[in-house]
Amino acid sequence: MVRIMGKFTQLRDASRKLQLLKANQRDLALNILADLIHEHSPSLINASELDLKENGESMTNANRARLILDSKKISQLVLGIRQVAKLSDPVGKTLDATVLDENLLLTKVSVPLGVLGVIFESRADVAPQIISLALRTANGVVMKAGSESKHVNSEYQKILIELSTSLEFLPNDWCQIYHQREIVKEMLAATEEIDLIIPRGSYELVKSVSENTKIPVLGHAAGVCHLYIHQSADLEKALNILFDAKLQYSAACNAIETVLIDNSLATTFIPKLITLAKERALELRGDEEFCKYDPSAIQIKSDAWNQEYGDAILAVKVVKDHNQAIEHINKYGSHHTDAIVAKSESAINTFLNRVDSANVYSNCSTRFADGFRYGFGAEIGISTGRIHARGPVGIDGLMTYKYILEGDGQIVADYVGEDAKAFLHLRKTVE
Amino acid sequence: MVRIMGKFTQLRDASRKLQLLKANQRDLALNILADLIHEHSPSLINASELDLKENGESMTNANRARLILDSKKISQLVLGIRQVAKLSDPVGKTLDATVLDENLLLTKVSVPLGVLGVIFESRADVAPQIISLALRTANGVVMKAGSESKHVNSEYQKILIELSTSLEFLPNDWCQIYHQREIVKEMLAATEEIDLIIPRGSYELVKSVSENTKIPVLGHAAGVCHLYIHQSADLEKALNILFDAKLQYSAACNAIETVLIDNSLATTFIPKLITLAKERALELRGDEEFCKYDPSAIQIKSDAWNQEYGDAILAVKVVKDHNQAIEHINKYGSHHTDAIVAKSESAINTFLNRVDSANVYSNCSTRFADGFRYGFGAEIGISTGRIHARGPVGIDGLMTYKYILEGDGQIVADYVGEDAKAFLHLRKTVE
Repeated sequence: MVRIMGKFTQLRDASRKLQLLKANQRDLALNILADLIHEHSPSLINASELDLKENGESMTNANRARLILDSKKISQLVLGIRQVAKLSDPVGKTLDATVLDENLLLTKVSVPLGVLGVIFESRADVAPQIISLALRTANGVVMKAGSESKHVNSEYQKILIELSTSLEFLPNDWCQIYHQREIVKEMLAATEEIDLIIPRGSYELVKSVSENTKIPVLGHAAGVCHLYIHQSADLEKALNILFDAKLQYSAACNAIETVLIDNSLATTFIPKLITLAKERALELRGDEEFCKYDPSAIQIKSDAWNQEYGDAILAVKVVKDHNQAIEHINKYGSHHTDAIVAKSESAINTFLNRVDSANVYSNCSTRFADGFRYGFGAEIGISTGRIHARGPVGIDGLMTYKYILEGDGQIVADYVGEDAKAFLHLRKTVE
Repeated sequence: MVRIMGKFTQLRDASRKLQLLKANQRDLALNILADLIHEHSPSLINASELDLKENGESMTNANRARLILDSKKISQLVLGIRQVAKLSDPVGKTLDATVLDENLLLTKVSVPLGVLGVIFESRADVAPQIISLALRTANGVVMKAGSESKHVNSEYQKILIELSTSLEFLPNDWCQIYHQREIVKEMLAATEEIDLIIPRGSYELVKSVSENTKIPVLGHAAGVCHLYIHQSADLEKALNILFDAKLQYSAACNAIETVLIDNSLATTFIPKLITLAKERALELRGDEEFCKYDPSAIQIKSDAWNQEYGDAILAVKVVKDHNQAIEHINKYGSHHTDAIVAKSESAINTFLNRVDSANVYSNCSTRFADGFRYGFGAEIGISTGRIHARGPVGIDGLMTYKYILEGDGQIVADYVGEDAKAFLHLRKTVE
């Protein structure tokens, strides 16, 4: 991999140049990127095989699967980039306009965040997704990929160089890929050069990144999600949603870890749940009440309700009412995604209002919490933070804004004191 | 001052309760707060006199002025709170709505950030402004006031208790005021309890806070603002703007520190500037070129262009063109507020596009960078960060959002794999 000297300082300049391109130039760059990845399929597949050969043996199946790049995955990648190319360009949009006074117009205009720092574990298909999102939003980007995927990421770096060479208008070095471990420390210390750090991977990665940088971090804490079965619930829907939310992909951060069951439903619902869980190889654990129905189940201690299993294990708790359910979720949850199953409109509204999470649902699976399912067209990650962006984050989360004020000589002294001129503050409609 | 035990943990609960109030309940609380401050005028004035008596002697005039609370300042405070009461309530607004599929509606709804931590130096009129903004946005708030203003801030704490007592619906302890220095350390460590730290005061305060917390900080770095006089400038307007931007209030963060003058204007503009600066007691410093016109002026070394004087001192630099001016601003500025004076449309557009600051202006004073002048109705501060909020920050900067998804039993398994249902992703118009 080409290690570029001067590194991060060039990214800021490059990102400022990207921002000045026309939207159709960014469209073109995205489509040529898609073409190049398609053309490089054979060498990408070879590189991924080499990564697998060198590192695969000691890996779990899931991690090995992440290193594989086959023609099907490449087709998906290419399709994804072409879709990003079709997304409306987010740069330079007028978000707001106010006439402060005659010939004094204030506009709020969208601009890129600047430079992104993305850190991800060994995966063969993350880099092109990041590259396309950064290009669409005119952000510079430095990436640190897991070292086990170094061959495939070196191929992407070559493609990037080819892209910059073939399009004269594209600045050099707007996007850099590294795999050396030392670079992480440099990235986390680059408070002047990098505006946002995006760790993509396990909760441990997100946590360790957050603890070691002064740069804002966009990521999610543990995904301790809940499903609450209200006394008014349709039990068939409840079970259907429960198994989807837990087992459709149990390692996902939006899979549930705990189901809260209204006391009045316990005798009918719990035995059904136990039977179905056995059939589907789902391990149930629970509170004292639940263990009366399943004495062999592990009983959960009161301080262990915030555990993320990320596996086919589900905690079951019987709650005396709505209030207890909401309080449990706000106390033990990670404010990611929580759902209620209920027919009662008022129970649903109370839940949606009072549960303090990024995503709150009624009568559907928590697994819908995802940028693609939300229709964002692309996703950079999911945020459980409350600042800047919350929930699934699409291209909007990679933008900020600036205020432009255009006058014809106005000074502030005329607007203060005894004979002060008054501001008009006329809000103009935009688009 | 009443020191409440349990402290910050109660704030989160209280903020969740605030959020559930109706908008007109928050309106009412704001108006009663204004009434109470008006009624307490005599004791507030007494308290401020006591603060002044105990601490005023060793203070500068400017700092002493900040401790004073007279009936005029109180009237302004009361008026300000009544204006905040009239601002449209920002809680629970539908920001976006998308039909994901039949009977599966996604809405994005505004919610408060949660709990704010505000740290400010000794001032007699900051607390009520913060209290009213927090109440309007339904955020809990903990404040650390400078210890020299402890008597007046104790009065505000009493008013808060009276407010909560007179309005049964208002949660206790949603707002806390401290003046003990130790509390700062506790606030900066409260990553679970406080969502946003807002330091209001000097750059040193902002810097020291940012360096000592993992909580996101909203504030501004040094205010190194620029005025660029393009060769097409109207020189009379340029001088008028220059003196307003520098001297109208030279300690403000949006006052300019440097003026960049196009080479072609140097011989006509600089002598005029020197004459006027003498009349108005403005000290000029400059580059080598400038010092040819004023040999007694201090010459600025190349690495000292990022200095914030915050006083009646202005740095002057002659630039050879537009590019050099923009590059100087992007390199040495603090990305706060920068302005061009020019008649050329293309010069203006290039400047507005390429200068990478929160506020970029043409033909008006940088001193307009302010939430009130922008028409926000209230201001919590100015941000030079790029994440979450940028430039002057009004009540919008104290809000976040959550996603609500309402279904009738939908599960994700139906939307993946071979016979996957397709999402509709129909964007609905809101308001």
